[in-house]
Amino acid sequence: MKNKPSLTIVKIGGNIIDNEIDLKQSLYDFTAIQGSKILVHGGGKSATKMAESLGLTPQMVDGRRITDKKMLAITVMMYAGLINKRIVAELQALDNLSIGFSGADGNLILSEKKKHPSIDFGFVGDIVQVNTPLLEQLISQDIVPIFCAITHDKKGQLLNTNADTIASELAIALSIFFDVNLIYCFEKQGVLMDFEDDTTVIETISVATYQELKEKKIIHSGMLPKIDNCFNALIKGVQKISIGHHSLLQNKDAIYTTIRL
Amino acid sequence: MKNKPSLTIVKIGGNIIDNEIDLKQSLYDFTAIQGSKILVHGGGKSATKMAESLGLTPQMVDGRRITDKKMLAITVMMYAGLINKRIVAELQALDNLSIGFSGADGNLILSEKKKHPSIDFGFVGDIVQVNTPLLEQLISQDIVPIFCAITHDKKGQLLNTNADTIASELAIALSIFFDVNLIYCFEKQGVLMDFEDDTTVIETISVATYQELKEKKIIHSGMLPKIDNCFNALIKGVQKISIGHHSLLQNKDAIYTTIRL
Repeated sequence: MKNKPSLTIVKIGGNIIDNEIDLKQSLYDFTAIQGSKILVHGGGKSATKMAESLGLTPQMVDGRRITDKKMLAITVMMYAGLINKRIVAELQALDNLSIGFSGADGNLILSEKKKHPSIDFGFVGDIVQVNTPLLEQLISQDIVPIFCAITHDKKGQLLNTNADTIASELAIALSIFFDVNLIYCFEKQGVLMDFEDDTTVIETISVATYQELKEKKIIHSGMLPKIDNCFNALIKGVQKISIGHHSLLQNKDAIYTTIRL
Repeated sequence: MKNKPSLTIVKIGGNIIDNEIDLKQSLYDFTAIQGSKILVHGGGKSATKMAESLGLTPQMVDGRRITDKKMLAITVMMYAGLINKRIVAELQALDNLSIGFSGADGNLILSEKKKHPSIDFGFVGDIVQVNTPLLEQLISQDIVPIFCAITHDKKGQLLNTNADTIASELAIALSIFFDVNLIYCFEKQGVLMDFEDDTTVIETISVATYQELKEKKIIHSGMLPKIDNCFNALIKGVQKISIGHHSLLQNKDAIYTTIRL
């Protein structure tokens, strides 16, 4: 177990994607990572903006957004097309041998349409399986996989899939071959005690402190499924999980949040 | 030289892409090809339609279309995004281990911005180099590469590139490792004596008969650069080149046009 090679999986969030300068800087920081690595990117507001430009109104059910056929086409265009290929081209310029993937490519991420007792979310995928052998093969050829948030059902249907979940499922699946270091990058320094104050980074969140942070409503809303995801990944074999600003990828003195069991 | 493995490179044209049923059938036909294979696809009218939906008017100089920044973004979205990933998902359903690529992915196709003494065509690429070793490696892992008509300059810039040229440049580059069979598929049975009559397929075009066909204006306009491309590829080592309907991929009795030196 001690001799597994290391693999860093970085997920960059939507707010980074939406800001061209921030995106370039985060790719520059990503380049500093030594050894095997994977990048997973969200889509930011690009799909919503494009939908608006095309005069489409988001379909909502019970206050939740539905990915209908047209919205799926837009997410595939924006995530797997424009954003993914821009990132790949930028990384090539920085001498990373990157290849952009959706989950359909190489059947790398197999999903099924999300099931819910009362709401049909449309073309949204829940991950079923990662094609770990092929992905391991590609990584061993020094390829740097760049994943967008699109998967497929292997019946010809593309599915919009949460990028955080893609990152954690890849991390879990690849833990068989690698010591995986999973890093969620966003525009803040980490999980903050005071959302407005970037100097209040919570340096460690453990199962025990998480309970307290939830009860005190310091961690709430969108951060909850993210942290739940992290604990799940740690239980399933991921070595290390951090949440912080992308500068941590090359600054060894950076302060960020580490999630521990 | 006699022991090179065989590789089939198929290019499917724009009119096939624009018709959903025809596209599905052509992918089904493509599946019938035994052994190593590559698919190259054009973009059809998708980018133009999307540009119109977004209220953009094509930029023209001297009657020739210019790929400006916005038009490039649209071609990347449509070709590398929607069309490429739909094709990959369909082929996965047909059990082809396909992976979609732009030329930026794996630095597989390096281009430079097209140079012209008087017209700036914008973000259009002329191919400089194919990353043959990586492509050969991927093919030897039974991966079926699916190329869209986007390349890059390795300085971070994506470039719109002619799909016919991508197919012939891949064929030439891979001739080092393979006996390459290059097939251009479109909606007709082949190059026709009478454009209106699908039963008038010219079964063989050689350098000698090409001269005559050009003089008699039987071959003209858009077909000329296509055939010139073919002769160039044959001279540079491509084993066989055909032009015909995609049904020829699985019908051994199909009639089509063969280009010979």
